[in-house]
Amino acid sequence: MRAVRNFKSDPVEDDKVRLVLEAATKAASGGNSQPWAFIVVRGRERKLQVQKVISREWHKEMDVEIEGMPPKRRRMYQSAANLVDHTADVPVIILACLDLTKSGRDELKYASIYPSVQNLMTAAWSLGLGTCLTTHGCSPEHGENEVKEILSIPEHIKVAALVYLGYPEGALSPPKRRALAAFVHNEGW
Amino acid sequence: MRAVRNFKSDPVEDDKVRLVLEAATKAASGGNSQPWAFIVVRGRERKLQVQKVISREWHKEMDVEIEGMPPKRRRMYQSAANLVDHTADVPVIILACLDLTKSGRDELKYASIYPSVQNLMTAAWSLGLGTCLTTHGCSPEHGENEVKEILSIPEHIKVAALVYLGYPEGALSPPKRRALAAFVHNEGW
Repeated sequence: MRAVRNFKSDPVEDDKVRLVLEAATKAASGGNSQPWAFIVVRGRERKLQVQKVISREWHKEMDVEIEGMPPKRRRMYQSAANLVDHTADVPVIILACLDLTKSGRDELKYASIYPSVQNLMTAAWSLGLGTCLTTHGCSPEHGENEVKEILSIPEHIKVAALVYLGYPEGALSPPKRRALAAFVHNEGW
Repeated sequence: MRAVRNFKSDPVEDDKVRLVLEAATKAASGGNSQPWAFIVVRGRERKLQVQKVISREWHKEMDVEIEGMPPKRRRMYQSAANLVDHTADVPVIILACLDLTKSGRDELKYASIYPSVQNLMTAAWSLGLGTCLTTHGCSPEHGENEVKEILSIPEHIKVAALVYLGYPEGALSPPKRRALAAFVHNEGW
């Protein structure tokens, strides 16, 4: 699976959206609390409103950083910028949220939402769809409260991920990762 | 996929352990930072040391809570207690950790580790293996520092998940989840 940052304008079938959401809800969660909520946004006007917030926040944080990056890294971030600046053109955005009354508020709560997001994304990939996991609008310092207001999300719900969903445009190379040995420690560090 | 809490004593082949770790490192991470580290523990003595800490912490927090639970919920938690009390009997435990120098320290860092854990677990399932995702020893309030000392984990590494891995013992029913409609909101809350 790859992170997809270029999408066709073709809409995503309702059945497929339902299937990827079903897959998300089959993930494990602490004490089977199922503390997730998924907000599916397809209306262009609503997507544009979200885009305005997350694009502004992205550029505020990243524009200066990008200047100083080596070319390869800069290209990756420019592709990320291009996606956030065209959020409204992506057929579906899904906000994966946590119900804090079910998850608790400490950091362990994230163990009960990101596995479900990965399930959603691998299910999408298996259906020929592409996704991109982002944390746009997922912290109060970067527009979360504005996004919540646009989508009428209540106070006790925390936005954890903003996932783009659609049919991939163009060919994708395999993911680039360092060799496994760099990450694995046997019996201890 | 189900959370597996009863494992056969059969060892897990090295090749399979390598494959599930490969799958983990194919997940997305913020800016392709690949901030994960995986500590694979199979030695009984080491597993026993970890067990002592996480089992003590688990019972300290949960014993009173369990008393007041309805029977079905109590059974789930007793099965979880049984697993943590027999950590050393599970063939492999894998600690999925975050390198904070790569991930940053704010809560968004978890978006760069739990998707990889889910990849690890689905890969394991596809190989006939079972897993259980836990957060034992994953917070300073619940023994993280002791676990880190046992496994010589440096200061800048945060434990995010403790995953059990082995061949499942016994038959598993499908996961029990509420209907999708309870979790999905279209265009807004």
